[in-house]
Amino acid sequence: MKTGFFITLEGFEGSGKTTLARKLHHLFLKNGLNAMLTKEPGGTQAGDKIRKILLERGNEGLGYKAELLLFTASRAENVRINIKPALEKGIIVICDRYFDSTTAYQGFGRGIDMGIIDYLNGLAVEGVIPDLTLFLDVDPDIGLKRATILSNNTELRFEDEFMQKKEVDGKLFLERVRDGYHQIARQNPERIKVIDANRDIPLILKDIVSIINTQLSQKFKKEITLEL
Amino acid sequence: MKTGFFITLEGFEGSGKTTLARKLHHLFLKNGLNAMLTKEPGGTQAGDKIRKILLERGNEGLGYKAELLLFTASRAENVRINIKPALEKGIIVICDRYFDSTTAYQGFGRGIDMGIIDYLNGLAVEGVIPDLTLFLDVDPDIGLKRATILSNNTELRFEDEFMQKKEVDGKLFLERVRDGYHQIARQNPERIKVIDANRDIPLILKDIVSIINTQLSQKFKKEITLEL
Repeated sequence: MKTGFFITLEGFEGSGKTTLARKLHHLFLKNGLNAMLTKEPGGTQAGDKIRKILLERGNEGLGYKAELLLFTASRAENVRINIKPALEKGIIVICDRYFDSTTAYQGFGRGIDMGIIDYLNGLAVEGVIPDLTLFLDVDPDIGLKRATILSNNTELRFEDEFMQKKEVDGKLFLERVRDGYHQIARQNPERIKVIDANRDIPLILKDIVSIINTQLSQKFKKEITLEL
Repeated sequence: MKTGFFITLEGFEGSGKTTLARKLHHLFLKNGLNAMLTKEPGGTQAGDKIRKILLERGNEGLGYKAELLLFTASRAENVRINIKPALEKGIIVICDRYFDSTTAYQGFGRGIDMGIIDYLNGLAVEGVIPDLTLFLDVDPDIGLKRATILSNNTELRFEDEFMQKKEVDGKLFLERVRDGYHQIARQNPERIKVIDANRDIPLILKDIVSIINTQLSQKFKKEITLEL
């Protein structure tokens, strides 16, 4: 029985996703709400090791199928160990990336058959669907600039990988991912909110908090107003 | 176009599987045939890292689903990088464990839904089915004794894991796996040969070579006799 509230953040690196996830987490705690922050890939012992395999590709590279299976394995562990138990205890869970990332990057971006994507997403999450997904929509150029400033160069991100390979291909890949996110959002209008993430973080946060206040109040059937 | 010959070895640790795979490999080379030896999980850069995650379970353990997905990811890489390209070049490939291990251990042993097992096996191998599978059937007690002698204690094997947990549960698990192997063998009588592996290695090797001589001669449409 899921009694908590499950929020996922989606979008490109440089969309402010990770920063906003942290800010949200602090905000919940500051307002006396029990909340947990997790991320994908990673968030568990096996997941952190899987994350390393995904980011440190050797000279053999990593096949698209193995990549997809590794993301799925990491997610299955995160659901089993962190997300599901927390939601069952009534905790608010914030997850930095979840199955929509797989649909957007591996499905729309890489072009893996969507039937396979859906099957593996379903296998990993076993019905643990977010109550709210914030798609932080950023212009790829703005996102890449921000991501480059933030990057500590220890992790090879998807965005980096594709930009390094060939600038034109990289741009096309990111455009496919972005279009994919918009398609997923259109298919799930109740769950997914598209946020203009080209703006400064405080403005984005204000929008997000307003959405969350409404949804939490509905879910818990009492007026909830998070104070910034 | 697959023009090589693909042999997999299956069975418990202590069945002589790994020793026999090595001996077969040497025998092919000695007889002037181009052959490659690989193993699962592992055999690639990503696969070797995945193998470590599978064997070094932390205090969170590893969920059955994540375990299954990791084996599948390792297999997908082994097929992509080693097995398929070698078979396309006409090389004889010997693989120490392949998808039948997943069916036997994760399907029959762990009790994961067989539909999921079949789906993931199909996804990993993409039609690269062994020409010949040698199921080295050993009495669990004999296998465990041999495996314990061989074990360097750096790798926690399935057999160890289950025996450590609880002797009775461990035995029941191994019995389910063994019954599973026999069921798979009955369903694939052309591909899978059941070998009595309670005997000494030289006797087993002699049997195996006789089977391989027959099958290679059929496949390559000329008399092939491996000299021991």
